[in-house]
Amino acid sequence: MARFLRVNMTDGTAGYEGVPEKYSMMGGRWLTSTLTAEEVPPTAHPLGPNNKLIFSPGIVTGSSAPTSARLSVGGKSPLTGGIKEANAGTRWGQQLARLGIKALIVEGQPATKGKLWGLHVTNESVTFFPADEFAGIGLYEVYPKLFERFGKKADIMAIGAAGEFLMTNAGVCFNDQEGRPSRYAGRGGLGAVLGSKGLKFIVVDGTGAPSSIPIANKELFDQGRKKLTEALMSHDITKPKGGLNSFGTAVLINIMNEAGGLPTRNFSSGRFEGAADISGEALFEGNKQRTGKELYNHACSPGCIIRCSNVWHKPDGTEHVSCQEYESIWSFGANCGIDSLDSTGELIRLCNDIGVDTIEAGVTMGVAMEGGLAKFGDADAAIQLMHEIGKGSPLGRILGNGAAFTGRALGVVRVPTVKGQAMPAYEPRAVKGIGVTYATSPMGADHTAGYTIAPEILGVSGKQDPLTTSNKAGLSSAFQSTTAFIDSSGHCLFIAFAILDIASGFEGMVEESAGVLGTNWTADDVVEIGRKIVKTEREFNLAAGMTKADDRMPEFMKYEPLPPHNVVWDVSDEELDSVHGA
Amino acid sequence: MARFLRVNMTDGTAGYEGVPEKYSMMGGRWLTSTLTAEEVPPTAHPLGPNNKLIFSPGIVTGSSAPTSARLSVGGKSPLTGGIKEANAGTRWGQQLARLGIKALIVEGQPATKGKLWGLHVTNESVTFFPADEFAGIGLYEVYPKLFERFGKKADIMAIGAAGEFLMTNAGVCFNDQEGRPSRYAGRGGLGAVLGSKGLKFIVVDGTGAPSSIPIANKELFDQGRKKLTEALMSHDITKPKGGLNSFGTAVLINIMNEAGGLPTRNFSSGRFEGAADISGEALFEGNKQRTGKELYNHACSPGCIIRCSNVWHKPDGTEHVSCQEYESIWSFGANCGIDSLDSTGELIRLCNDIGVDTIEAGVTMGVAMEGGLAKFGDADAAIQLMHEIGKGSPLGRILGNGAAFTGRALGVVRVPTVKGQAMPAYEPRAVKGIGVTYATSPMGADHTAGYTIAPEILGVSGKQDPLTTSNKAGLSSAFQSTTAFIDSSGHCLFIAFAILDIASGFEGMVEESAGVLGTNWTADDVVEIGRKIVKTEREFNLAAGMTKADDRMPEFMKYEPLPPHNVVWDVSDEELDSVHGA
Repeated sequence: MARFLRVNMTDGTAGYEGVPEKYSMMGGRWLTSTLTAEEVPPTAHPLGPNNKLIFSPGIVTGSSAPTSARLSVGGKSPLTGGIKEANAGTRWGQQLARLGIKALIVEGQPATKGKLWGLHVTNESVTFFPADEFAGIGLYEVYPKLFERFGKKADIMAIGAAGEFLMTNAGVCFNDQEGRPSRYAGRGGLGAVLGSKGLKFIVVDGTGAPSSIPIANKELFDQGRKKLTEALMSHDITKPKGGLNSFGTAVLINIMNEAGGLPTRNFSSGRFEGAADISGEALFEGNKQRTGKELYNHACSPGCIIRCSNVWHKPDGTEHVSCQEYESIWSFGANCGIDSLDSTGELIRLCNDIGVDTIEAGVTMGVAMEGGLAKFGDADAAIQLMHEIGKGSPLGRILGNGAAFTGRALGVVRVPTVKGQAMPAYEPRAVKGIGVTYATSPMGADHTAGYTIAPEILGVSGKQDPLTTSNKAGLSSAFQSTTAFIDSSGHCLFIAFAILDIASGFEGMVEESAGVLGTNWTADDVVEIGRKIVKTEREFNLAAGMTKADDRMPEFMKYEPLPPHNVVWDVSDEELDSVHGA
Repeated sequence: MARFLRVNMTDGTAGYEGVPEKYSMMGGRWLTSTLTAEEVPPTAHPLGPNNKLIFSPGIVTGSSAPTSARLSVGGKSPLTGGIKEANAGTRWGQQLARLGIKALIVEGQPATKGKLWGLHVTNESVTFFPADEFAGIGLYEVYPKLFERFGKKADIMAIGAAGEFLMTNAGVCFNDQEGRPSRYAGRGGLGAVLGSKGLKFIVVDGTGAPSSIPIANKELFDQGRKKLTEALMSHDITKPKGGLNSFGTAVLINIMNEAGGLPTRNFSSGRFEGAADISGEALFEGNKQRTGKELYNHACSPGCIIRCSNVWHKPDGTEHVSCQEYESIWSFGANCGIDSLDSTGELIRLCNDIGVDTIEAGVTMGVAMEGGLAKFGDADAAIQLMHEIGKGSPLGRILGNGAAFTGRALGVVRVPTVKGQAMPAYEPRAVKGIGVTYATSPMGADHTAGYTIAPEILGVSGKQDPLTTSNKAGLSSAFQSTTAFIDSSGHCLFIAFAILDIASGFEGMVEESAGVLGTNWTADDVVEIGRKIVKTEREFNLAAGMTKADDRMPEFMKYEPLPPHNVVWDVSDEELDSVHGA
């Protein structure tokens, strides 16, 4: 019996309500974006009483579908001022789904500021608990205490100190299967929305709930699950001991560097001389030397076939941090001129501990270095600056609010952001299609919103020249629509590698979703659904005050040629405006 | 012979060029806004190489027209992201006009950062001089040194440390007749544009130039001058020993407090219990006690009849600061819960010294107090915070970037800004017409853009109920158009009190302008010109990415009732959108 759990922080109440028919087919990003568009005034202050934060498991999340533990978190972004969906792979979302909760909606704001609360959601009850004792404490210390109190079967959503400080780079943290505070719906500052409402934790325990969400058409679902599983098990990138399982996403460091598209020293070059030292291969070798074992990666959440999450080890062989993702290594590594995985590992660990997004934090660090706060390559200085964020010092208040904010504080013009959100690890001047996605996604600069890297760099779903501007609007548009559906289905975006190359895999994803809901969706239907989701998001942004001028790359990219290809951003405004149609 | 002086900071050159016919009738705001719209790409980064800073004396500036020393400064604002015109009354503009310079355009950007330059403009030459030795030094120390070097006949434009730090509350400073660094084109952060170009000073010396600008129709000009002079000499607000000459603009403190529209403690009330202690009357009495004399005010620039500028004295009778304007006293006074003119005086002096706008700085201070950096009423803490701006410390980097920026750094939701610019000293919930101006002016929240306080509070140009929402769009629209022309004519806005009540005074302003240019403008013509100026500015903003959502008041004013009238902001969006027509 699907239901909404509505949590009102004005009066400290929480209660279930039925799901209106119009939302019954929705899940994940589709539902968070639709509810945000319908319930949040577009001009509301993101940290005021009229913003909401909405959690929604994907359509198949909580079923036995492979690699489908994604949970969407949505609302109005304090970072971009537009709509935001960020998602994470975590058992937390699977438990929420098993409890029948299609959306958990946090709204309102206490009249008295400064008090922190937690919410404990079980099959029997929903209760608040005071959380002031955890204020300002690092999440690596907090999570074990909460597991001790609520048991190992519980999963924890938390904001860190950054969220309490209402910093616009505060992420929403979930635990991985080993209980680490490491799986983030990081982007867009949604942690600050929870901070503004005084809600620091949501602990979910599905004990006693059904082991799976209801499946309307079991036969269709099973058929889809088989197809998708086969595709994931056979594609070189997604299969066991394949690219992602062996090297993690960091396999991209060498590839992007070779392509001249690895943003280096605050987007002043596309190639980093220290790339090999922070590559996925170096990560694999480093772990092997330090542990004496060839370590393959693990799953961030139950039921994942791809298993791309890694652990980095200290010289003595003990665990240092999980997870060194490509984008996280890059943001603190090449982007800051730092060529040590021990340094990137420590910086990532601090992000997890303080509760900020690694991409935004690393790009912020690059801007700070350009602004003179530290020298490029000075990892110790970068670590000190991260600690400032955790302390909430004036300097930390600058850095914790992200790259665009830091650029303005320091008067830096070379600030790689779109809609106020930092660009990820792919140089748009060298890979034009991903630049089109950065510019036109309703989310701000976001590689996951339309990952054209697949055809432009990896040869997945055909092969496209990254340097040409031709047809990149259509490419990005197709990826953005498909992605919006994947983000709604509850599958990890990484299934895209397999399902874009293997048609039966795509059918499998559609059939799983249709099987859960009892629809007869085709591949065309789900792409159309994706298009509608993006349209809803864009309409929210327009009403919030965005225009075509917000669908543009930062000006410096138009007049600063990027080595080694010495290319500027030259996709026309008309091409950008064509992405989402008239 | 009218000319443009174009200063290129990329290659360090400066040269004269003829004035294209299409600009020949323009001056002041009309010219700065038109040139900005034509020469600056709307999406240019305000601190990048493609922004420009344009200085233009008004149409009659440099003639014998009364109260007409206004100089406009324009470009793309680093504070609002939109077009900006800020103006000041200063002999600097009169000298520029007498040199035949209709516009001084600063463009480009040096490839090497960090070096500071000055420009020396005389009747014979235009030369650069190195200015690094003045970096970071307070302007009260800098100005005497420059007068020593360039002579007392020179006038000085400067940016302070805030401009060097590229802070978006950096103003553009000019000297008054006694050489004080006290007359600011303060709003919108234009000082940071100069900072980004490395131009710290422009010294202008008109020695050898004609004593007046050319007058095409002397008879018409003289007729106008006579009419305007008579109006100014007879109106109670503008005449010698009238309201402005006796009490300065601070005469408004008690009036606005009585009206319940004096924003208090970061716009949480419209009445301040300490108002009497910071009123114009208290200023007059304080000076009398400390100097033993009844001091009437002085003129900020040659040829002014109104003479509203004051000097505040220390207990020992020596000078403390000039000038304690209404808005400046209010911003640090009522708005920060501070009830001492010695404290507001010191805070204003620090603004002048560091080079920031007093309105933005005081509103920033109110937001900082709400964010917990100091207690309301703690003047010593406020003074310490101002020093942080001057030092460029991390805290100063936050505060020096203005109220909206500080609000985001500290997570404060009650931030009284429109288009990122701080609201001045009139509570829009209690005086609806001025709120319409704040919301819809292309400049951001700016009382001078359409001063409906005249009819709503002062009974000038009729009498309107401040609390009603009726017809406030039309009222603001008319004021905005008329003001845009006054700002182009070179007259101080304060002539409006006289010319709105005395029809022949308005004719005088028109005839003076028409006399200088040899046109046959009527009153209707100049209002139409004003409308076109505002339209040009709005079009720039739209192309820069602004929308109707930017023509709105901050959300908190819609749900927080303001004491003592307990009113919210209730002018409809439709009414706001009607201000500038379809």
